[in-house]
Amino acid sequence: MDGERIWTAGLVIIGDEILSGRTQDRNVAQIAAWLNLQGIRLREVRIVPDVKERIVEAVTALAQASDYLFTTGGIGPTHDDITVDAIADALGVGVVEHPRARAALEAHYASRGGLTEARLRMARVPDGAELIENPMSGAPGIRCGNIFILAGVPHIATLMLEALSGQLEGGKPLLSQTVGCWTAESEVADLLEEAERAHPGCQVGSYPFFRDGRVGANFVIRSTDAATLEACAADLAARLEQSGRSVVKDGI
Amino acid sequence: MDGERIWTAGLVIIGDEILSGRTQDRNVAQIAAWLNLQGIRLREVRIVPDVKERIVEAVTALAQASDYLFTTGGIGPTHDDITVDAIADALGVGVVEHPRARAALEAHYASRGGLTEARLRMARVPDGAELIENPMSGAPGIRCGNIFILAGVPHIATLMLEALSGQLEGGKPLLSQTVGCWTAESEVADLLEEAERAHPGCQVGSYPFFRDGRVGANFVIRSTDAATLEACAADLAARLEQSGRSVVKDGI
Repeated sequence: MDGERIWTAGLVIIGDEILSGRTQDRNVAQIAAWLNLQGIRLREVRIVPDVKERIVEAVTALAQASDYLFTTGGIGPTHDDITVDAIADALGVGVVEHPRARAALEAHYASRGGLTEARLRMARVPDGAELIENPMSGAPGIRCGNIFILAGVPHIATLMLEALSGQLEGGKPLLSQTVGCWTAESEVADLLEEAERAHPGCQVGSYPFFRDGRVGANFVIRSTDAATLEACAADLAARLEQSGRSVVKDGI
Repeated sequence: MDGERIWTAGLVIIGDEILSGRTQDRNVAQIAAWLNLQGIRLREVRIVPDVKERIVEAVTALAQASDYLFTTGGIGPTHDDITVDAIADALGVGVVEHPRARAALEAHYASRGGLTEARLRMARVPDGAELIENPMSGAPGIRCGNIFILAGVPHIATLMLEALSGQLEGGKPLLSQTVGCWTAESEVADLLEEAERAHPGCQVGSYPFFRDGRVGANFVIRSTDAATLEACAADLAARLEQSGRSVVKDGI
């Protein structure tokens, strides 16, 4: 496993509605889970307002630090949709109308009142960009090299991720296994650390909860190597059982 | 309203479980809504892994850019709980045991098996810190000047926010009003922009949806000034109605 290349992604969530607390974000979790299936680790997320300089700053920083960069939000037809302009600025290119995006919008709006100037805004892309299919609303996502511009509406972002599935080079997916135990995590902190140390290449995370009047915890073991993962999970379960606790396989 | 001071906060969410997609974050939305009630704007959120240097980097950047900084996660008893060490590093201070935190933990664990070395980890604070009450689990939150270290478990974070309510200096809360309309946002993009321009100090956001087979949108107007907000919302509703659309007060 040493020297194995790890592929990483950054994610910039663009939207005043998330920062105001009005809208519960759903894109971090769905993009994180999808990236993991592609063998790509989500390295960092930044949530920024609908302000061009702030988007440029976040996109530039995370694009430099990761192999891929994703954004969600700000690609609709209204005046607060400025993601395309911000990414073009970050890349130092102009904004152009993409002929295939225009054609898709024309087809979509043919029975819905036709193209307007506002709707045509959704055909604007940073120069040199490709489109990411969106069968739902006619407005495509946008790919500029390793930057992927997705919709903010979660179910439209889902469709764009589906269109990208299997297209991105990645490494081994990070596998995980969960060991549940009706115990306070503070009682078994040593066991967790010992199990992690005994199996290099594994990380052991502890996620406590309080349910039905009892405290418990799920211990999540992560590794890119299936055998190492299996060994660490079995070892941790054995250590917990030797300490007189019963273990719930696959978590509580 | 000109020259009115705007108070801002940054938020660093610490946790591999959010970046892996295993756990749906709930803290961004609840902290954002709470901050707004205090008259403080959430300026930016960063989600980073359980890696000390990465936490230090994010905390340092956001603390410099905002009046207040909040963190969630990584203050439990296990080896992956390293937030206190990271914040101490960021502040250039040592880590000490806080006597009142130790006393609270002793009281809480008196009937639960007593204090262990792992549980005592939760009494560690950056030198000079104060505690934020947590009636739930005995483990307190931590305040270091304008840095607030909260639990990752959302309902414990809620209790810590309650303990802080009314304690932080802020400005005028950002008020909002919603105008709903069964229309495609792309049909009324011009009206939105005109209403925003006609009322300086207001922002108009557009949040489209697809429900029961129909497209609609909620238009959210935000301002710190109640009269300006009211005027902008009434103006937008009038413009929409003049265009032949009916409007749903307070949103759909």
